[in-house]
Amino acid sequence: MARAIIAGAGALPGLLLQSGPAHVVRMQGVESDPLDAPEIVARFEQFGALFAALRDAGVQDVAFAGAIGRPAFDPSLMDPETMTLMPRVAAAMGQGDDALLRTVAAIFEEAGFRVVGALDLRPDLAMTEGAVFGTPGDAQRADAARARAVLDVLGPLDVGQAAVAAKGQVIGIETLQGTDAMLRFVGASLPASGGVLVKRPKPGQDLRMDTPAIGPATVMKAAEAGLSGVEIAAGSVLVLDQEGVIGACEASGLALWAAS
Amino acid sequence: MARAIIAGAGALPGLLLQSGPAHVVRMQGVESDPLDAPEIVARFEQFGALFAALRDAGVQDVAFAGAIGRPAFDPSLMDPETMTLMPRVAAAMGQGDDALLRTVAAIFEEAGFRVVGALDLRPDLAMTEGAVFGTPGDAQRADAARARAVLDVLGPLDVGQAAVAAKGQVIGIETLQGTDAMLRFVGASLPASGGVLVKRPKPGQDLRMDTPAIGPATVMKAAEAGLSGVEIAAGSVLVLDQEGVIGACEASGLALWAAS
Repeated sequence: MARAIIAGAGALPGLLLQSGPAHVVRMQGVESDPLDAPEIVARFEQFGALFAALRDAGVQDVAFAGAIGRPAFDPSLMDPETMTLMPRVAAAMGQGDDALLRTVAAIFEEAGFRVVGALDLRPDLAMTEGAVFGTPGDAQRADAARARAVLDVLGPLDVGQAAVAAKGQVIGIETLQGTDAMLRFVGASLPASGGVLVKRPKPGQDLRMDTPAIGPATVMKAAEAGLSGVEIAAGSVLVLDQEGVIGACEASGLALWAAS
Repeated sequence: MARAIIAGAGALPGLLLQSGPAHVVRMQGVESDPLDAPEIVARFEQFGALFAALRDAGVQDVAFAGAIGRPAFDPSLMDPETMTLMPRVAAAMGQGDDALLRTVAAIFEEAGFRVVGALDLRPDLAMTEGAVFGTPGDAQRADAARARAVLDVLGPLDVGQAAVAAKGQVIGIETLQGTDAMLRFVGASLPASGGVLVKRPKPGQDLRMDTPAIGPATVMKAAEAGLSGVEIAAGSVLVLDQEGVIGACEASGLALWAAS
């Protein structure tokens, strides 16, 4: 059951490596931290070569970890396997992040690999239901419920992993630009709202490919945006650097809790 | 059938006055343009006095026009009628703009007035289905459909009169802060998206109290945000200053169309 971690930016590849030995795949043009593991270097234009290298290494399980971005793609470098796959990938790209990731997962599975998620390897990185730091008040719970209702209806449209409500009103809904951009918008337009950030996967989202995550920076950015609390989905949002996250809650006074 | 226009900011009170003679109600703390019509001065703390003044003037139909904002409210000035109404108003305030406006409309109706909307008085201010300026391309139509799908699911939650999509991705969803704030966010985070702004009432929204509207400034702000087109709902979005709007489309190159 040899394993490979396709490494993107941030701490997640290293955290997954802690769950057991693995090859680390470095994609050209993707930033990733150095790790103490055998490496496979690959590029998006050459899926055929990547699959061959994974097979040569005896890899059966593949985990995607960390932000990949949308690196430059040079069509002149494509190998035949990639050319065959391109129409599917291109079609999926127009349908939102989730559709694209589902297609990429299907492509790896059809090539004979099992796609495993961050939570399969490190279930301890998610939180069980309940308070993580502080205790949410009734108004915070009500704001969280309002933000959750928005995410519930948007999920089937493949929109929104996060939303913010304050005093019963919705004041931020995550779009393509991501959670940080939404928090900057909220902070700039309503500086001291005291609102609650809710972060959770879209209903039906393939968690193996893209598990929502928070870290100390998320808490600090929520605090800078004038919020009073953060609710994450129990069991399906990664908390990267739990000690650092609790330290950020202490420093900023924000409450943090996990809800089902 | 004497009529009163409760005047807020902007051009709408004057446009409604053009449909026939009316008293103009000036609420203390609310900005409104001078108009050539008999005035009734009132304050939010004294609904009883306002209703009495309207009856004295023989008013049967009441139209709300223009932005009212949330002016200061001095509880010590409340008359008995307002005290009786406050619990209902306060409860509605926590449920979103639409709930609040529905409650205010109900209060006026229970006091014996008929609430009429801007489109009842000036149906010519809305557009019939079709191109207003330029012709939307297929990609623009597809982006508009994507933004519309988002507004359709959010409407029942009383969220969102506008959204922006570009290249199949949702990049802006209006929240409490309004359309202009959303356009600034889109322009700042994705400067040249070429996206489409869709503006339409929420499904089930009471158009009498708050009819979505665009004007020349809306088109210019959409252009500054890097968009390529604007779609409004046929028959239910007011176009204030149609000549100015078309001039703004000409100046900016944005397409504008109405869809059912």
